[in-house]
Amino acid sequence: MSDVVDLLRAELGVRVDTSPGALEAARADKSGHRSAGAPLAVVHAASVSDVQRTLRIASRTRTPVVTRGAGTGLAGAALAGPGEIALSTRAMTRILEISADDLLAVVEPGILNAELNEALAPHGLWWAPDPASRAISTVGGNIATGAGGLLCAKYGVVRDAVLGVDLVTADGELMRLGHRSVKGVTGLDLTSLVIGSEGRLGVIVGATLKLRRLTPGHVRTIAATFPDVGGAARASSQVTARGIQPALMELMDAASLAAVHRLLALPAPTPGAAQLTVQTDGPAADAEADAVARVVREAGGAVVISHDPAEGERLLTIRRSVHPAMEAMGTTLIEDVSVPRSALPAMFAEIARIEADFGLVIPTVAHAGDGNLHPNFVFDGDDVPAHVWEAADALFRVALALGGTLTGEHGIGVLKRRWLVDELGPGQWALQERVVRAFDPEGILNPGKVF
Amino acid sequence: MSDVVDLLRAELGVRVDTSPGALEAARADKSGHRSAGAPLAVVHAASVSDVQRTLRIASRTRTPVVTRGAGTGLAGAALAGPGEIALSTRAMTRILEISADDLLAVVEPGILNAELNEALAPHGLWWAPDPASRAISTVGGNIATGAGGLLCAKYGVVRDAVLGVDLVTADGELMRLGHRSVKGVTGLDLTSLVIGSEGRLGVIVGATLKLRRLTPGHVRTIAATFPDVGGAARASSQVTARGIQPALMELMDAASLAAVHRLLALPAPTPGAAQLTVQTDGPAADAEADAVARVVREAGGAVVISHDPAEGERLLTIRRSVHPAMEAMGTTLIEDVSVPRSALPAMFAEIARIEADFGLVIPTVAHAGDGNLHPNFVFDGDDVPAHVWEAADALFRVALALGGTLTGEHGIGVLKRRWLVDELGPGQWALQERVVRAFDPEGILNPGKVF
Ligand SMILES: Cc1cc2nc3c(=O)[nH]c(=O)nc-3n(C[C@H](O)[C@H](O)[C@H](O)COP(=O)(O)OP(=O)(O)OC[C@H]3O[C@@H](n4cnc5c(N)ncnc54)[C@H](O)[C@@H]3O)c2cc1C
Ligand SMILES: Cc1cc2nc3c(=O)[nH]c(=O)nc-3n(C[C@H](O)[C@H](O)[C@H](O)COP(=O)(O)OP(=O)(O)OC[C@H]3O[C@@H](n4cnc5c(N)ncnc54)[C@H](O)[C@@H]3O)c2cc1C
Repeated sequence: MSDVVDLLRAELGVRVDTSPGALEAARADKSGHRSAGAPLAVVHAASVSDVQRTLRIASRTRTPVVTRGAGTGLAGAALAGPGEIALSTRAMTRILEISADDLLAVVEPGILNAELNEALAPHGLWWAPDPASRAISTVGGNIATGAGGLLCAKYGVVRDAVLGVDLVTADGELMRLGHRSVKGVTGLDLTSLVIGSEGRLGVIVGATLKLRRLTPGHVRTIAATFPDVGGAARASSQVTARGIQPALMELMDAASLAAVHRLLALPAPTPGAAQLTVQTDGPAADAEADAVARVVREAGGAVVISHDPAEGERLLTIRRSVHPAMEAMGTTLIEDVSVPRSALPAMFAEIARIEADFGLVIPTVAHAGDGNLHPNFVFDGDDVPAHVWEAADALFRVALALGGTLTGEHGIGVLKRRWLVDELGPGQWALQERVVRAFDPEGILNPGKVF
Repeated sequence: MSDVVDLLRAELGVRVDTSPGALEAARADKSGHRSAGAPLAVVHAASVSDVQRTLRIASRTRTPVVTRGAGTGLAGAALAGPGEIALSTRAMTRILEISADDLLAVVEPGILNAELNEALAPHGLWWAPDPASRAISTVGGNIATGAGGLLCAKYGVVRDAVLGVDLVTADGELMRLGHRSVKGVTGLDLTSLVIGSEGRLGVIVGATLKLRRLTPGHVRTIAATFPDVGGAARASSQVTARGIQPALMELMDAASLAAVHRLLALPAPTPGAAQLTVQTDGPAADAEADAVARVVREAGGAVVISHDPAEGERLLTIRRSVHPAMEAMGTTLIEDVSVPRSALPAMFAEIARIEADFGLVIPTVAHAGDGNLHPNFVFDGDDVPAHVWEAADALFRVALALGGTLTGEHGIGVLKRRWLVDELGPGQWALQERVVRAFDPEGILNPGKVF
């Protein structure tokens, strides 16, 4: 196997990193999981050609390759282990073009989402996908996971924001998928197929992104408190049902709210109380904020509307602090089920039932505007205890029964692999594997992930 | 081969149609082309099980199957010929569910787009894709072609309006792709892959559609006349570049305008004059209409703004009459290239050059809001003359060089098959074929179309 490292070194020189720190870092992502041991090497690709040369060596020697962006994934999809090459695209950070006239940008995959948006802002433009990890995750990783974010109920997810992808396939060939025009139905839509493919189909070495103009006007923030989470869930479903389109709508249950208040040293919230935080923007921001407030009050919420952007940010900080608040409590398994928006109240009722059945507290937040929930399982130690997996299993089954899906934005990775067939059915599962083989006949790209 | 018809009859009885009229109709679509001869039979499927039984017989006997919706396609993708089964989903017209709360509908594939929207309107809902053929084309056909329409610059194409697809693959297995939740990244996005796949991956037997609420308020219509098509093209690019979002923006060049005026017996337009028709809607309709008018005037257009919906419809009728106006002149080859919006002026200049080089008049209309052009080649007789294909070839090369694509909404079918590899490159072309084989290993679904 060290032959492979020699071959890599001969071709890629200093780009090949076998320092213990780099190897150790490549074993993990932000899921809290790690691979069984160190990979062979980390290749820090700086160009398309670096990626191609790495994959040609990998193909020739049948060495598995795990592509990594910033390693912020929550599904264990970027964990690199023994016998594998970790191929990092983090150093490919150039913006090759920004076209305000055509509302597009052409970028390399390693640029951070927030860095890109800083560069776009002076042009009055932005790329809409805004995962809470935008400051630390790469655009390539966002594409490979099909990332969502707080604003995606109104402004779309990654899938809505990519025109084309340059992909290097397992054999080192560069394919230009998609086009610069906003419309196009030439051949199969492989661009969409690559979005969310978690490193299984090829290495994304470039992307043509669909941009938006910055939304003019002010943001309104509505913060509503409910005596229980059911009320908050019903209110959020009602907002959607009434046809109001908030920019974001975030729900926090009592346990997650209490944990954040503890972390931020705020006064403890009323026991059992849940919170809904809604923002409206654009020309109709005021009218929509009033409409949201009406619906929320009818559903039993106590409402505060804020016109002050700083106060709005402060309210959102509470929501954004959930992840650190969970980490402060122990090891976290962050779940990510998504259901039709009308099913949110039913889903919260089922979570309460699962809490009771398994004797667990499952702090849960939701991107309520699009029906995506993050139930958090918190435990001690490195390994997910068996009864937590059982509770997670119950949770997945309920989400599927409600017409939902295992993962709204984080992906399958290694953590949800064993449930994939339950959702797809054996026929579709086998079909998806055949599609993977069409891209990667030898199965060297991120093997064991997703499928 | 008549064995196959016997097998079909034994399973499907009266659903199997070998009447000369039905066989003849299945040879054609609206491209003006027809297959070499009659297919074996037309199966009028009325249920998922009819589709499955047909495909099982086809698989077993290795008989090619051409799925057909309403046969309004413009690329020859639904032409059924000798030795093939034509499988029509036109009789599967049920609406299984309309959920206003979740903004979705579950439908069978044979329902006409306009019929669906009539059923949705009382719920205050609509399905946004609005091909000019909406009164005569099926939702299944719209999905299989990835159809666009007049409103898609603002409200999206089919790809943006489908949550899930039920697909019967070549072996007769039913797969449920996608989910009812608006978000989801479980496994590969096969739903997107099926959209625009032109009958090559399977038979769409059901779809979960993403709906919108009807846009409240009034529509404003801006009709602008320009001394030449270059001015109209520059104006439309400017509207996009300034960040204005019209509901629709349609451009007609002098030749298409003159042809429509002849057809509708209107006074002849000023020679050389081109027209841009723009509509704005929603809460900002007035402000946006004023902004459009300003840009258009700066670009040298003479502007009329209408607040009267009837007058707006009358102005659009001129645009909608292009297809019949072309048909009145002879046989038409309707092209469908799409370019980045800033490249519209360059594309029109190239069309003028191609007209001069080939001694042709190429009446051209464009969905200018999304950069999609329909240059029309009109000729006598059934077969496309060689010099017309040469001119079309020149047109495709120019569109690709400008960063565009062969087909914005009509598909590849048989008509554009020979150019596909020029756009995809040989590597991607082969990859796409392998993906098709993952769905249909024996190659019985619509063979010879697209690839
Ligand atoms: C605090 C926190 C908040 C988060 N919030 C959100 C959120 O709101 N929404 C959300 O969707 N996610 C969220 N995430 C998860 C994570 O940030 C996203 O999945 C992100 O898109 C991963 O990007 P990355 O660059 O870190 O990719 P990595 O973690 O490095 O990789 C993720 C996957 O993408 C593949 N990959 C990466 N780069 C490439 C490439 N160039 N070519 C091919 N495959 C590639 C990897 O193989 C792996 O399968 C959050 C994570 C954290 C830690
Ligand atoms: C006057 C006129 C105007 C038009 N305007 C537009 C326009 O503005 N925008 C636009 O995009 N198109 C337009 N078209 C083209 C055409 O109407 C669209 O392509 C439409 O989506 C085809 O639908 P159909 O039901 O007629 O499909 P068909 O023509 O029957 O089939 C088209 C393709 O879809 C496949 N297919 C059909 N049903 C299924 C199914 N259930 N499962 C799997 N595959 C299936 C067929 O195999 C074939 O490949 C226009 C056509 C005409 C005649």
